[in-house]
Amino acid sequence: MTAEALDVTHDPSVRSFVASADGHPDFPLQNLPLGVFRPPTSGVARGGVRIGDEILDLAGLAVSGLLSATALEAAHAGSAPALNDLFALGAAHRGALRGEVHRLLRADAPERDTVAALLHPVAGSQLMLPARVGDYTDFYAGIHHARAVGALFRPHEPLPPNYRWLPIGYHGRASSVGVSPAFVHRPRGQLRQPDGTPAYAPSQRLDYELELGVWIGASPVPGQVVPVARAAEHISGFCLLNDWSARDVQSWESQPLGPFLAKSFATTVSPWVVTPEALRPYRTPLERSPDDPEPLDHLRDPADLAAGGLDVELEVAVSSAAMRAAGHEPLVLSTSSTRHLFWTVAQLVAHHASNGLQLWPGDLFGSGTISGPAPGSEGSLLERTRGGTAAVTLPTGEARTFLEDGDEVVLRARAARPGVAPVGFGECRGVVTGPLASGAGGA
Amino acid sequence: MTAEALDVTHDPSVRSFVASADGHPDFPLQNLPLGVFRPPTSGVARGGVRIGDEILDLAGLAVSGLLSATALEAAHAGSAPALNDLFALGAAHRGALRGEVHRLLRADAPERDTVAALLHPVAGSQLMLPARVGDYTDFYAGIHHARAVGALFRPHEPLPPNYRWLPIGYHGRASSVGVSPAFVHRPRGQLRQPDGTPAYAPSQRLDYELELGVWIGASPVPGQVVPVARAAEHISGFCLLNDWSARDVQSWESQPLGPFLAKSFATTVSPWVVTPEALRPYRTPLERSPDDPEPLDHLRDPADLAAGGLDVELEVAVSSAAMRAAGHEPLVLSTSSTRHLFWTVAQLVAHHASNGLQLWPGDLFGSGTISGPAPGSEGSLLERTRGGTAAVTLPTGEARTFLEDGDEVVLRARAARPGVAPVGFGECRGVVTGPLASGAGGA
Repeated sequence: MTAEALDVTHDPSVRSFVASADGHPDFPLQNLPLGVFRPPTSGVARGGVRIGDEILDLAGLAVSGLLSATALEAAHAGSAPALNDLFALGAAHRGALRGEVHRLLRADAPERDTVAALLHPVAGSQLMLPARVGDYTDFYAGIHHARAVGALFRPHEPLPPNYRWLPIGYHGRASSVGVSPAFVHRPRGQLRQPDGTPAYAPSQRLDYELELGVWIGASPVPGQVVPVARAAEHISGFCLLNDWSARDVQSWESQPLGPFLAKSFATTVSPWVVTPEALRPYRTPLERSPDDPEPLDHLRDPADLAAGGLDVELEVAVSSAAMRAAGHEPLVLSTSSTRHLFWTVAQLVAHHASNGLQLWPGDLFGSGTISGPAPGSEGSLLERTRGGTAAVTLPTGEARTFLEDGDEVVLRARAARPGVAPVGFGECRGVVTGPLASGAGGA
Repeated sequence: MTAEALDVTHDPSVRSFVASADGHPDFPLQNLPLGVFRPPTSGVARGGVRIGDEILDLAGLAVSGLLSATALEAAHAGSAPALNDLFALGAAHRGALRGEVHRLLRADAPERDTVAALLHPVAGSQLMLPARVGDYTDFYAGIHHARAVGALFRPHEPLPPNYRWLPIGYHGRASSVGVSPAFVHRPRGQLRQPDGTPAYAPSQRLDYELELGVWIGASPVPGQVVPVARAAEHISGFCLLNDWSARDVQSWESQPLGPFLAKSFATTVSPWVVTPEALRPYRTPLERSPDDPEPLDHLRDPADLAAGGLDVELEVAVSSAAMRAAGHEPLVLSTSSTRHLFWTVAQLVAHHASNGLQLWPGDLFGSGTISGPAPGSEGSLLERTRGGTAAVTLPTGEARTFLEDGDEVVLRARAARPGVAPVGFGECRGVVTGPLASGAGGA
C-alpha cells in the first residue's frame, strides 16, 4: 500500500445532509464503508454505504439516474446480496463510487431529496456478511502476540526463526465465517487430561483473538506472482475479525499440522468494509527494529515500508450475562493498534500469492492477533491472563481466565487524529452460548 | 460406514448393452461413478454417469421420461454443471439414481435405444471438477506415512502423541483444487539457504502425495454433532487426490502453524466420484495393532470398526518428458492401499464435525498420504527417496529425487477381488510445468 494523495472525500470540513453523520465518531461523510443489509421495509438483501446512522441503498442508487459511468457500474455490482462482484471491479470503480456517493451526500448536494429517499436506518436493518467468503486465511503478523504466546509454549525460542522473514499464516475454514452480532456455541473437542489421555468435552479454555480482517478484491493477472508494490490493488477493504479459539483443543491437536478444530468452529467479522481510500489519512510506517532483517525483494517496496502500515486503534471489551443484567457496559480488557503488526497488508497479499496461487474476490485474511508490547494491550485472554494464571475481575466481582457461557466479546476499531475526520469500523460482537447437543451421549 | 447389503447393482453377472463396459477394468456396470462433463457436441457442462468408455448424460436423462420420483429428482439435481445439489440430496437419492441407471443400462433393458441416445463418448468430452469445493480439509490418516515422515523430521518421536487419538488434519485452500489432467506450475517460495537465511526461488523439492479424496454430501442437522455411526450419511463419494507439496517451502514455513504455501499452489482430483454404494463389496476392517488405544466414544462405532475401512489398491507412476518422447509408459514407483489408513472415512467426518462446525455439500477431504509399511509402498517421493537421498532411476537413465519440470504424475486406484466386479477410480494426472513468471524480477 503506497501513500496516495488525499482528495475532497477526506476533507474534514465537508458536512453531510445526514444529520447523524456530522460528528459521528465512526461513520462521518469521510468514511463511507460498504456492507450488505436487509432494510426494515424489505426482505431483499443488497449492498449499501454506511453514513452516520443510515445506510445508502446501492440497489436504489444504481437505478436512480444519479450516477455516471464507472460509479454506476460499481453500484450495479453492489446491488447484489454479496459484494463479491463489486470487490472484483477493483480500486478504480470503488474510488469512483466513493467520489459520487460523497458528492451526493454533501450538505449542499442539489439531489439531496432524491438521495434521502434511498436511505434506510441502521436500526431495524439486518446487517449481513459482506461477501461470500471464498478462502479464509489467518496470518500471525502481530509480533508481540507471537512473542508472548511463543514464550508460553516455547520458552527456549519464543519467535520461530522464520518469523521475521515471512508472514506466517495458515488456511482457515471459510464456511465458519459469520457476521457480527454472532452467537457462538462453545465448541467440544479432545482435551488432554492429567493422565495424558484425551477426553471429548466442551472446551474449558475458550478465547477471543483481536484481529484486523482484510477483504480481497480484484484478482491478480493469472500466471504471474504479485509484486508487493502492486499488492494493494487487490485489497477491497478492512474489518474487525474475532478468531475465536479453544486453547485446550488447540494445544492437543496442533502438532504437527497446525490449528484445526480449535479455530474452525466460528470466526466473526464486523459488517462494514472500511475501504483503503477511507484509511488513506491513517497510513504509517512499519514498526521495525534495527536488528530485523531487510525483507526479501518480493516483499520489499520502499513506499510500502514507509507508509504501508495502518494507524487504527483497537480495543476488546467483555461483558458477562450478570454484568449486562446489572446494567454494566462491557469492560475494556485491552487496547491495541494495527501499528503493532510486523507486516503490512500489502506484504500479506504478496506473500500469499508468491507461490503462484490465485486470489479471488471475497477471499478473507485475518491479520493474526494484534497485541501491543505493554500490559493492557493483549489481543487474547491467553495473553491477558498469562495462560489462565492471572484472572481478570469483572465489575460484578466475577473472575475470568477464559470465556464463560453468556459472555459477550466486543471488538472495536477507530482511526482518529486531530484535524482529520475519524474513520471507525464499528463493532464486532459475539456471545458465547452453551455447547452443542452431543450426538455421542457425552456431557 | 457400516456394512450394508449388496443388491442387484453389485451382481457381477449382470451385463450392460454398452459394449465397452463389459470387462472394463474400472467402469463396468457395477461402478457407475458420477462426474461433470462437457460433451464433444455441446458447450454446456452437466452431470453424467460413467459407463465403460461412455458417459450417460444426467441432464438428458432427467427429461427423458425414463425415471421415476426419487431418481428423477436426483437426475434433475445432477443436470447442473456442478454436483453440489445432487450431493446435498444424500444417500437415498443417490441410491435410487444408481438403481434406475443400472436398470436402464442393462443388456436386457427395453429402453436401451432411448438410453443409448443419451450416451456421449468419454473421448472428446471435457471432464470438469465434479463440484464447487466449499472447504477443503487435508487429513494425515496414513499412519505409515506419518511415521516415515516423522522419522525424517522428528526422529525422537516419529508419531506425535495425539496421532492415535484423533485424525490430525488441517484446512487447505479450496480454490486451488483442480481436476485431472492438470498443469501444475512449479511453485516459488522462501527456501532456506545453507547460511540459514531464506531466498525466494522456485521449489527444488517438488513432490506428490497419493491420497484418497472424499466428497461431502448432505449436511448434518445444524446444532448437533455427528455420531460416527451416522457419519457415512454425509459422504457422497470418493476420488483420487494429489496433494502436491513443495518440501523445501514446507520445512521453512510450517512452524508453528502448519503447511500453507507449500501445499496451496495446487491440489488435483480425479474427475469421477466413486459412490459409497459402488464400494460396498470392498469394505474391510481397520488395521489396528493391540497397543492402539480404543477410539473415544464419539469416534467409535463397532460396525464402523468392523467394516468401515476400504480395500482399494492404489498406485503412483511418473513419466519424464524424455520417457514420453521415447514411448515409455509411466514408471510405477509405488503401490499402496486404502487399507493402510489408520482412521475410517466415517471417523474423519465425525471428528471434523465434532467441534460443532457445519459440513456442506461439496466440501472435500483428503485422507493424507497413503503409504504402506513396506518399501515400494511409499505415497510420496519424500519417503520413496528417503528425504531425497536415494534417487529413483527412470527407464531413460534419468535420476529423480524430486519432480522435475515436464514430469507427469499419474495416480490410479481400483478395487478388485475374484468373483466381484472391479470398481475403478480412473486416473489423476498432472504435469509439472516451469515456474510462474516472477513479478519481483527474480529467477
